[in-house]
Amino acid sequence: MISLKVDLDERSYPIYIGKNLLGEKDLLQPHIPGQQVLIVSNTTVAPLYLQQLKALLTGKQVVEKILPDGEKYKNQETLNTIYDTLLQNRMDRNVTLIALGGGVVGDITGFAAASYQRGVHFIQVPTTLLSQVDSSVGGKTGINHPLGKNMIGAFKQPRCVLADTNTLKTLPRRELAAGFAEVAKYGFLHDEAFISWLESNLDAIFSLNDQALAYIIKRSCQSKADIVAADEYEAGKRALLNLGHTFGHAIETEMGYGNWLHGEAVATGMCMAARMSQILGWISSKDVDRVENLLSKAGLPITPPEQMTKESFLKTMSVDKKVKNGVMTLILLKKLGEAIICNHYGEDKLNQLFNYYQL
Amino acid sequence: MISLKVDLDERSYPIYIGKNLLGEKDLLQPHIPGQQVLIVSNTTVAPLYLQQLKALLTGKQVVEKILPDGEKYKNQETLNTIYDTLLQNRMDRNVTLIALGGGVVGDITGFAAASYQRGVHFIQVPTTLLSQVDSSVGGKTGINHPLGKNMIGAFKQPRCVLADTNTLKTLPRRELAAGFAEVAKYGFLHDEAFISWLESNLDAIFSLNDQALAYIIKRSCQSKADIVAADEYEAGKRALLNLGHTFGHAIETEMGYGNWLHGEAVATGMCMAARMSQILGWISSKDVDRVENLLSKAGLPITPPEQMTKESFLKTMSVDKKVKNGVMTLILLKKLGEAIICNHYGEDKLNQLFNYYQL
Repeated sequence: MISLKVDLDERSYPIYIGKNLLGEKDLLQPHIPGQQVLIVSNTTVAPLYLQQLKALLTGKQVVEKILPDGEKYKNQETLNTIYDTLLQNRMDRNVTLIALGGGVVGDITGFAAASYQRGVHFIQVPTTLLSQVDSSVGGKTGINHPLGKNMIGAFKQPRCVLADTNTLKTLPRRELAAGFAEVAKYGFLHDEAFISWLESNLDAIFSLNDQALAYIIKRSCQSKADIVAADEYEAGKRALLNLGHTFGHAIETEMGYGNWLHGEAVATGMCMAARMSQILGWISSKDVDRVENLLSKAGLPITPPEQMTKESFLKTMSVDKKVKNGVMTLILLKKLGEAIICNHYGEDKLNQLFNYYQL
Repeated sequence: MISLKVDLDERSYPIYIGKNLLGEKDLLQPHIPGQQVLIVSNTTVAPLYLQQLKALLTGKQVVEKILPDGEKYKNQETLNTIYDTLLQNRMDRNVTLIALGGGVVGDITGFAAASYQRGVHFIQVPTTLLSQVDSSVGGKTGINHPLGKNMIGAFKQPRCVLADTNTLKTLPRRELAAGFAEVAKYGFLHDEAFISWLESNLDAIFSLNDQALAYIIKRSCQSKADIVAADEYEAGKRALLNLGHTFGHAIETEMGYGNWLHGEAVATGMCMAARMSQILGWISSKDVDRVENLLSKAGLPITPPEQMTKESFLKTMSVDKKVKNGVMTLILLKKLGEAIICNHYGEDKLNQLFNYYQL
């Protein structure tokens, strides 16, 4: 088992990463201060892992809340059903909420923990690669509003995160690849050695070797923790985490959420950012090939969908949160393994990029 | 103008107290970091003070949200309408929410500010005596749930509080008295000199002398700030703020919320706590007279409503948050001006109390 500490003064917490952690009896209990526990999961994950998790909670008063599966349920209505369950079971300020599932379950459960009785305890048991590497660090929780994604929420740090690599064995291959896109992102943006490691170990990862999985989860969480911590002092660096996300967000929006997975859109977005960096003369064609090859071998798309046009990209990108004074900020690659925040790329270069993809 | 600093490290903020502060142009603007402002008020307060407040915000993009007036609207549905307004007006993470009104407006607006885009800026302009002395300090925000009051919420500190004593001139006399009950509480619980001051200046207060009003607001806020700060180190002292609230809560619940104002129920509850302290031999009958006289002269009820019985008191008190291991905690008076947290009063003494009131 690997243990990684996220350093946030009195809100510091450990991330436990490894094989069969849902079988480790003594891992979770020290992080549960009271007698009452509410496990929140969904209809896909609960049949697979709920009993295992409950077996770790002997001696506690355990209640379960099983949500429907899907991003479209990450809303106020679903959140209210969690509050209802808490109140109907007379759960008090010392209750611990455990999120068992992917990003949606983690986000909504985290916000319930942040807001029930002005804040109760929270533990994450992420069961997808994406949530293990992404939601484990940063404390962002929330729900969607009909007028915008993640518009209602709070920062809420968990008391611990338990990332059991076993749970990835029941994850659809497509979702594993989508999570891998976020893993590769950490290599591209500031860790060239990690790119090489991923190139050499791609088979081990996708044949679900536990050691390889634990290693990429740990290295990704460590990367994110470092970047998030640095941003407490100099605002901006956290934006690097958006590598591939501005182009990716345009694809997700235009194609309709759920048709392209988030990680798939990000993968294509990273290829576009790499190509743009090459057009600017910062990286070589060979560098772009490495980005494309790694993602492509993982089974991820590396070119935008045919339906997309230059106009459809620009329409979404121009209303993105990352626009300041009318200039779209892009995260580009100064070199492979070193991302930068860029506003001065020139409109003509962006046109060249769209032309390259015949958009 | 009096300025009082609430000391919370990087979340410290000033409370400005005085006459006609809503006419002071330079007071509010330095606490608004961005261009966008949403004023939240209600149908009673907005016609009286909204234009004055808006006149302080020249150069800002100001949007208003007027809620229906009343505790029954402090719910998820109303909160959602605030989110809707924020999103429809494309208000971003740098928006400042200003609560203009009493406790309900402050609580719901504070929670909206805590949860919109994971937290935006918040300013309070309380317009009732109760909210000026109570909501100004402590950071508690939230809404009610059908199964419990204040069950959903967050701690959210404002950037500043502006308590204009002018606004009390339009407050119904009954609500002024209800706010006064919380003011007197600070005297009874740890400040005998303040009791004497209130006895001598009751006429000035209720004839709305601005200096007298500013003084009681300042001294109450200071008291609460001291007690809240002390509780960060030794859990428990904050419970003293519940003097009169256990009996009072039973009255509010049994009579139906809104029939007795919160402050009225607390006033009677404090008289009952004083009487109980006298039965225990801690304070004299004369001390109890002082408590009853001060509150009675302010126009507050000092005996429980006729409909209440011993059983109706015990029913509500036994499900109160303040019950631990089946024993009801009471806040009683060791002497006048010194409250204590008490679990060992003996059931027979409690019966004597109920008999005294012929319950």
